[in-house]
Amino acid sequence: MSREVVSHRDGHVYEFGPEMEPTYEAADGESLTIETIDSLNGAIQTDDDLLDAIPEEVNAATGPIAVEGASPGDVLAVEIEAVRVTEDVGRVLTAPGFGLLQDDPEIEHPATRITEVSDAAGEAGSGNAERDGVGGSDGDEAGRIDFEGIEVPIEPVIGTIGVATAEETISTLTPDDHGGNLDTTDMTAGATAYFPVFQEGAMLAMGDSKAAMADGEMCGTGAEIGTEIDVTLSVIEDPEVPIERPLVDTGNAVKTVASAETMEDAVELANGDVVRLLEHEHGFSRTEAYLFSSLVGGLEVSQVVDPQVTARNAVPSEYLSIPF
Amino acid sequence: MSREVVSHRDGHVYEFGPEMEPTYEAADGESLTIETIDSLNGAIQTDDDLLDAIPEEVNAATGPIAVEGASPGDVLAVEIEAVRVTEDVGRVLTAPGFGLLQDDPEIEHPATRITEVSDAAGEAGSGNAERDGVGGSDGDEAGRIDFEGIEVPIEPVIGTIGVATAEETISTLTPDDHGGNLDTTDMTAGATAYFPVFQEGAMLAMGDSKAAMADGEMCGTGAEIGTEIDVTLSVIEDPEVPIERPLVDTGNAVKTVASAETMEDAVELANGDVVRLLEHEHGFSRTEAYLFSSLVGGLEVSQVVDPQVTARNAVPSEYLSIPF
Repeated sequence: MSREVVSHRDGHVYEFGPEMEPTYEAADGESLTIETIDSLNGAIQTDDDLLDAIPEEVNAATGPIAVEGASPGDVLAVEIEAVRVTEDVGRVLTAPGFGLLQDDPEIEHPATRITEVSDAAGEAGSGNAERDGVGGSDGDEAGRIDFEGIEVPIEPVIGTIGVATAEETISTLTPDDHGGNLDTTDMTAGATAYFPVFQEGAMLAMGDSKAAMADGEMCGTGAEIGTEIDVTLSVIEDPEVPIERPLVDTGNAVKTVASAETMEDAVELANGDVVRLLEHEHGFSRTEAYLFSSLVGGLEVSQVVDPQVTARNAVPSEYLSIPF
Repeated sequence: MSREVVSHRDGHVYEFGPEMEPTYEAADGESLTIETIDSLNGAIQTDDDLLDAIPEEVNAATGPIAVEGASPGDVLAVEIEAVRVTEDVGRVLTAPGFGLLQDDPEIEHPATRITEVSDAAGEAGSGNAERDGVGGSDGDEAGRIDFEGIEVPIEPVIGTIGVATAEETISTLTPDDHGGNLDTTDMTAGATAYFPVFQEGAMLAMGDSKAAMADGEMCGTGAEIGTEIDVTLSVIEDPEVPIERPLVDTGNAVKTVASAETMEDAVELANGDVVRLLEHEHGFSRTEAYLFSSLVGGLEVSQVVDPQVTARNAVPSEYLSIPF
């Protein structure tokens, strides 16, 4: 069976809400390719294109995709097989009132730097699907982007990825328990992301990819770029351990992912989720799980610039597995 | 020349201040072995030893060591060659009113778990000095600690490391611009830490080592343990780029280290310091340095539990070198 392609041209959203109309209906276990446009919808093409304010419609997320059989209380597994950049430029930029150093008088807001893709395609992962995108390597040689003469490896990140919410309607600029604008570098080829299902069909959508991004996304963007994303979608019914927030398995570590108004609150949620998983994995008391969480892996920053910030708690795979 | 040993028995401090009396006077370029006691001065030896409150005297830091020729405005380089555990147990614990999940009603405060060293010594790094400590491997095989039947590799961390302050007197429980209780996993064998010199002689002190610690140190401790630390101390006079806070070169990355009341403030300081280093390294404008900082490496959590929290901004070594 050929892999269906779901493009942002077929449908995209700027909000995750409790009621979403599917662009595509996928079977449980189906493999898809999802095409995403850059977070600014192509508005920034040269260094002279400046962003005077964050647009109301930003981070277009392709979808939503209804997954057959997904019901509230289930978990949706999104195996990310490959992320390929599909443009020959990315863009990294500041905008007024946005970013970690937005009050620094020596930093220009707005400012834009185009990052040209300087060689082979930004394949990350083991996929070898035919590509319409830039370049044509089979993934052994990742591409690079150029920032003012400095080459940076393309290590794509899916910035916005999530499912329909339990109740609220939440902009694709904001991360929360449903996922959304998580801006988490682990959301890339080789990882499997897990989301709580709040609504029938789960209603997965994703976009806002970057060719490269630092943990923290300090200036407010990575190198924003269009991508093709190969995924396989599976429903986990009645999970043994319910989850309230996203999880990601990178292959090397299992990480809880939590968003909140402050970093202090986000790391507390992420650690609390890890403690629950460690209790289940090892039969620990909650106290023991907490003590153990302070010895291995640890807290990580996803991003500190969105309307809510996002943190992770990583535990190496030898000490924690995905519980379903 | 044999390497001098400076022990906590020779002298230790519970505060970093502007005026400190040296325990030892080192030559510029001298190599030393520093012996440290565990952060709780041996008070916790079994699971039944509970910490009802954080003691007033905690994190004894061996020293201070005056380094010949170090003057205000200089930088002190501390090359950490080896960290060896010198006890057969570590201890990980909670105390009331302390730790990330201190308000979780299902987690006991206080609680203690002894982590026994289960095999060869916790040598990390390439040193092969004779040791009086536990075990006797030459470092090829790191030791392990046992947490309730789960083995965790010994990856020692120097929890408290710093120099005399500019003005304030600051407890060894608190990190700040002088270093102090940074609880940063990079402070280990193979790394070189750099501190701003605020007072004549710099007045280096260190202690509070852990056999293992998660980034974040969520419960408030790692596996607290006594260590021997081999270091070489060098003074960098009139550095080309002055520093206001600690830096660490791990060999793979250069990281700024910043402490503040909130994680938001700490990451802002750490990113601002990285931006200044990137400007110097690449001749970037401040805007360009900020944009570039959002593409590679990124923000990291050191600890979220001390009276001030500590964060890092890492930049891979291929993009940033120590500027002196």
